[in-house]
Amino acid sequence: MVGKRTNFGVAGGELDLLRTIRDRAARGARQGSLRLGIGDDCALLGVKPGEELAVTTDLSIAGRHFRMDCHPPESVGHRTLARGLSDLAAMGARPVAAFLSLGVPRELTVRKGRGGSWVDRFLEGLFRLADTHGCPLAGGDLAESPVALADIVLVGAAPAGKALRRSGALPGDLLYVTGTLGAAAAGLAKLGETVARRSSRRWIDPPRVPAVLVAHLYPQPRIAQGLTLRRRGLAAAAIDLSDGLSTDLAHLCEESGAGAIIQAEKLPLGGTASVDQALHGGEDYELLFAARPWLRMPRTLAGVPITGIGQIARPQRGMPRVMIETGTTVEPLAPQGWEHFGS
Amino acid sequence: MVGKRTNFGVAGGELDLLRTIRDRAARGARQGSLRLGIGDDCALLGVKPGEELAVTTDLSIAGRHFRMDCHPPESVGHRTLARGLSDLAAMGARPVAAFLSLGVPRELTVRKGRGGSWVDRFLEGLFRLADTHGCPLAGGDLAESPVALADIVLVGAAPAGKALRRSGALPGDLLYVTGTLGAAAAGLAKLGETVARRSSRRWIDPPRVPAVLVAHLYPQPRIAQGLTLRRRGLAAAAIDLSDGLSTDLAHLCEESGAGAIIQAEKLPLGGTASVDQALHGGEDYELLFAARPWLRMPRTLAGVPITGIGQIARPQRGMPRVMIETGTTVEPLAPQGWEHFGS
Repeated sequence: MVGKRTNFGVAGGELDLLRTIRDRAARGARQGSLRLGIGDDCALLGVKPGEELAVTTDLSIAGRHFRMDCHPPESVGHRTLARGLSDLAAMGARPVAAFLSLGVPRELTVRKGRGGSWVDRFLEGLFRLADTHGCPLAGGDLAESPVALADIVLVGAAPAGKALRRSGALPGDLLYVTGTLGAAAAGLAKLGETVARRSSRRWIDPPRVPAVLVAHLYPQPRIAQGLTLRRRGLAAAAIDLSDGLSTDLAHLCEESGAGAIIQAEKLPLGGTASVDQALHGGEDYELLFAARPWLRMPRTLAGVPITGIGQIARPQRGMPRVMIETGTTVEPLAPQGWEHFGS
Repeated sequence: MVGKRTNFGVAGGELDLLRTIRDRAARGARQGSLRLGIGDDCALLGVKPGEELAVTTDLSIAGRHFRMDCHPPESVGHRTLARGLSDLAAMGARPVAAFLSLGVPRELTVRKGRGGSWVDRFLEGLFRLADTHGCPLAGGDLAESPVALADIVLVGAAPAGKALRRSGALPGDLLYVTGTLGAAAAGLAKLGETVARRSSRRWIDPPRVPAVLVAHLYPQPRIAQGLTLRRRGLAAAAIDLSDGLSTDLAHLCEESGAGAIIQAEKLPLGGTASVDQALHGGEDYELLFAARPWLRMPRTLAGVPITGIGQIARPQRGMPRVMIETGTTVEPLAPQGWEHFGS
């Protein structure tokens, strides 16, 4: 049975679920730019004069981006939306609306006890983060699927020509990151170990999540920090740290046609994270940005600490783009994009 | 391995595929409103002053919305995009950009002979339709998945307050459809029969598709017709026929708070389609619209015939919203949203 193509498509048997989503979406974040929400062929969004749109989509699939046996559904919903919001943060865009395409095996829609079904709990995690960022759910699609998957679409807005880009960094620019690095990877390692040891995973369900897992299960996209960087003209180039510093910095350098050198000792390690986890771990969803060297950089942006970790350099022919200085040695830093569960 | 989150995310081993898509997208449709395409955290889209945005997402999953054993990959790509474009058509919106999240088993990315891999052929079908409608591919995501799936996002634009909606029909309005009905369902029935009989399915690969299958494999979304309806103020309410007339008309009536009566003998049957296929078949991707009775309706819209099939009525308490008149009898017409392959 194919879903009815409202802008939240739905199969016949899932009409209850659609109603739940529609009601929850209407109760949710302020509907400022949303002129027509769930229920027609498309959602209609208003844009302020002089703005342009930032749009991103991120696909999350069970067994690849999350695990049914160790991620609480609330965390999967939160992380799904966080991935998209973090892309908006990296552009300095304000969230306008989110769209969710959700494919799940039928049994995940069956209510179990007080917490509701897997899907109910997934949506709860997603809506809670959406409300925090004032981002309404404006539409999407639902379908039965042999494997759980969620594709999130974020539409944001920024003044035309002012969005932050990966290109734009120049040799001599200083490199900064928001927050700390590696805590998500450290948390994931801990999650794997501990789940393997325990028969029940109720202990990681909200609100019992231990502090060591919070950065992995409930990462905070840096929307306010991205907006501040853009409004105050502080960043010459920016990217979000989704795949890890080594990989994301290489991307920023590539798009800027530049190289970079970072100092290992300056990395702001999160919690129990190792330098390796900070360099390659990924999923911290912090912002990495380059700034002109004469700018006075504040110590914090919207309450989150900023740390200088190195600088943009001229690219050297035949040399890797990114180098790392540890004590007195300088070595190439290869991008080691992070493997999820070895898949 | 998680995809790198450019606005076309990609896993390490799929970088070639990303490059293919990026190159093909750059060669494709005019990039008018596209200010920044694939390669950053988000795509950036321009909007004309006074316009609002129409956004829709549609999820297609193998075994549910298409079959690996009988749909040529070009058709799956075409139909994926057609679903989204048809939603824009129903709003009278012009296409601005498409985004594609694609999840596939690794073997579908392996090239086979001259035609390329399943994914190459899927993309060829999608890009060909995108080019026809001047709709650039601006981003998306790629991931390995145990089942092939594609989530398509369409962003369109229309003058603020002028987009066509499902609501707005009034008792006395006349009901019209574009083109013909039922040919997609008739084609699908034929496809099932014939594939079951034949060992090879090369005969349905482009350009050998028999005429009887074209409406099912390569439906044409009615973008130009939707734009004309909107610009000339001809439609009081509109919806696209994705799930079948009986279901989609019920939705239009529900959103308009009205009822409707249609005449069976007036239905413009497509090819060998039966009345049942025209009523319930779905996937014709024609437009259904209501118009004030005093409007002079042209016989064609942008080259496609228009047929009056009935009218909007006052809803009767305790009666079904939609009735059908056949000869001298008038009966309720229950929505029979169409089952794809019985799943």
